[in-house]
Amino acid sequence: MPFPDCEFPDPMPDLAFPFALGLSSLATEGFEVRILDQRVLPHDVRMCVLRSLEDSALAIESMQVRGAPLIGVTAAYGVALALKKDASDQGLENALCRLGKTRPTAVNLHWALAQMAMRLEPLAPHARPHAAWQQAQALHRQEQGFAKAIGVHGLEWIKAQHNPNRPFQVLTHCNAGALATVGPGTALAPLYAAHRAGIDIHVWVSETRPRNQGWLTEWELRQAGVPCTLIADNAAAYLMTKGDVDWVIVGADRIARNGDTANKIGTALKAMAAHWHRIPFHVAAPSSTIDWACHQGEAIPIEARDPRELLNPPGTLMQVDIHLLSGRTLANPAFDVTPADLITGFITEQGICTPSSLQALQK
Amino acid sequence: MPFPDCEFPDPMPDLAFPFALGLSSLATEGFEVRILDQRVLPHDVRMCVLRSLEDSALAIESMQVRGAPLIGVTAAYGVALALKKDASDQGLENALCRLGKTRPTAVNLHWALAQMAMRLEPLAPHARPHAAWQQAQALHRQEQGFAKAIGVHGLEWIKAQHNPNRPFQVLTHCNAGALATVGPGTALAPLYAAHRAGIDIHVWVSETRPRNQGWLTEWELRQAGVPCTLIADNAAAYLMTKGDVDWVIVGADRIARNGDTANKIGTALKAMAAHWHRIPFHVAAPSSTIDWACHQGEAIPIEARDPRELLNPPGTLMQVDIHLLSGRTLANPAFDVTPADLITGFITEQGICTPSSLQALQK
Repeated sequence: MPFPDCEFPDPMPDLAFPFALGLSSLATEGFEVRILDQRVLPHDVRMCVLRSLEDSALAIESMQVRGAPLIGVTAAYGVALALKKDASDQGLENALCRLGKTRPTAVNLHWALAQMAMRLEPLAPHARPHAAWQQAQALHRQEQGFAKAIGVHGLEWIKAQHNPNRPFQVLTHCNAGALATVGPGTALAPLYAAHRAGIDIHVWVSETRPRNQGWLTEWELRQAGVPCTLIADNAAAYLMTKGDVDWVIVGADRIARNGDTANKIGTALKAMAAHWHRIPFHVAAPSSTIDWACHQGEAIPIEARDPRELLNPPGTLMQVDIHLLSGRTLANPAFDVTPADLITGFITEQGICTPSSLQALQK
Repeated sequence: MPFPDCEFPDPMPDLAFPFALGLSSLATEGFEVRILDQRVLPHDVRMCVLRSLEDSALAIESMQVRGAPLIGVTAAYGVALALKKDASDQGLENALCRLGKTRPTAVNLHWALAQMAMRLEPLAPHARPHAAWQQAQALHRQEQGFAKAIGVHGLEWIKAQHNPNRPFQVLTHCNAGALATVGPGTALAPLYAAHRAGIDIHVWVSETRPRNQGWLTEWELRQAGVPCTLIADNAAAYLMTKGDVDWVIVGADRIARNGDTANKIGTALKAMAAHWHRIPFHVAAPSSTIDWACHQGEAIPIEARDPRELLNPPGTLMQVDIHLLSGRTLANPAFDVTPADLITGFITEQGICTPSSLQALQK
């Protein structure tokens, strides 16, 4: 798919992120890529500059950048940075290979690399560096547009569902906000749009062990003035049983063509609880997250991350009390697959659809 | 109900706890009550002596002792300690009232206090101190017998279910082991019995945020040589989907007469996931955990604990980085209610029954 112009209606024209700070998860200046180091948030706001292929690959592997759409854009710029130094066929191949191995589950990474390859492989080496930068910028702008469009479509759904006499209560998991994308988010984009439209919403944010990305969500929602409450991952069913959850919305790392969806570990538990309570459960993601070559969830590779992540204290990824590992066996799968049967609908840049009508999005 | 003799078959006659250390969660010596301070486990093994009503009440409130059966026994000794100083009607009333307010959800506390009241109120004050101690010891022995009997009945179930060609894979939540009782545990008693019977079992232990009681379970299983792996609470559905969970077993804090069961926050999520995957889900508890006056789960009071518990680093309850609270809203419900429809069966000291046949246990 070439890069369409991103002429979506824009409900959030001045929604820079983080809202109070005027930063963004990824920005370019000249031929430099600056990222917000998400490993130290929310304690510390620190920018890093990516100058090479290796900088970009390590940023993805170490989760300085995270979130499927942001990983894709970072990888695209990683190719462009690599070609500045070596634009030969071998140089391009090396870049695609190195970046492709950084993280296995989020398909946006592979989607972005495929887009870069398709554009750059036919070109002569001397033409590649400039074209690569342009292509990465086009992908960047496209993902910004996708996130805004997801906000528009999700807002329509909220408007149709919410009872104006009481707050609209939303539960989310992990971080699928501005920090996970290059726009206002995927799962959080409709919530920002609703808040700006004056709808009284409140968001339950599950802390998302073991990497604690819920703390990122809480941080960015609070920056934007959206009322939210941080909870343990374990509290989801309790809140649903109490009647305090009207909607569950999450992002995605890879959607199979039948609608099975890989997302942060713990998502499937929330989907099963929502199903039991008959609460609608939506997945918000750009179409770049759909893996048309993957027929069902079983085929999605699930990343097993370092078990030491289980030692992370809340709210930080940096201080690990390593002696806690001694003698213990720990396991740390990073994603799970929510069966399509448990998903009420998908919110993409093209609108809202059910799992059974997802295939109509394939072009 | 008076105190029956506890003549259960004993599959674990020499199963002292913690197994390698020769300690127990609660022990008496003369008229002194010694407890293992569970707030500092597994980092540190520290005994505390309870000498008064207030010592006992604070030990329960602060979770130096925890787990429904152990809370009940501690409260019974708390009454006995109180009556050593003031055995008047007022003194007895004060003790029952103070201890009754320590924690709201676990019904064993109220059951134990009702047993103490029933025995002590008719007596003259001078006869109460001795009778109170005897009564607390009778309760203590009774709960020990209950836990062992739960192990026997649960072992029969495991024997009938497990495939001898591969490990029997069990998922548990929170700590319902020797640390939560005065015997080998409730949920963990059948697992210890199976391990001793030579059955190849492996236990997935969810860390149980925010108080991290999974680290206690991992610690006591490891002391006993039972193979186990610590996981994030979020990983349960992933393991079930992979086919790596044969059985879910948990303890309980209060069981309503219809079978709805309050247990540690996060239990209901696991029950919903087990239901989706058609994996049997059992609740192990002594009959002292059944609240016959409570008709259904909605009536069970759910404790809201200090939100600062969300700041607990893994594996400890002691180091809280308090500035993380700044500006944030946090919520910390400590229990949830698993609907009876999701429970395959209850394992009590009297055997295994379904939710619909639970009422036959009422005497």
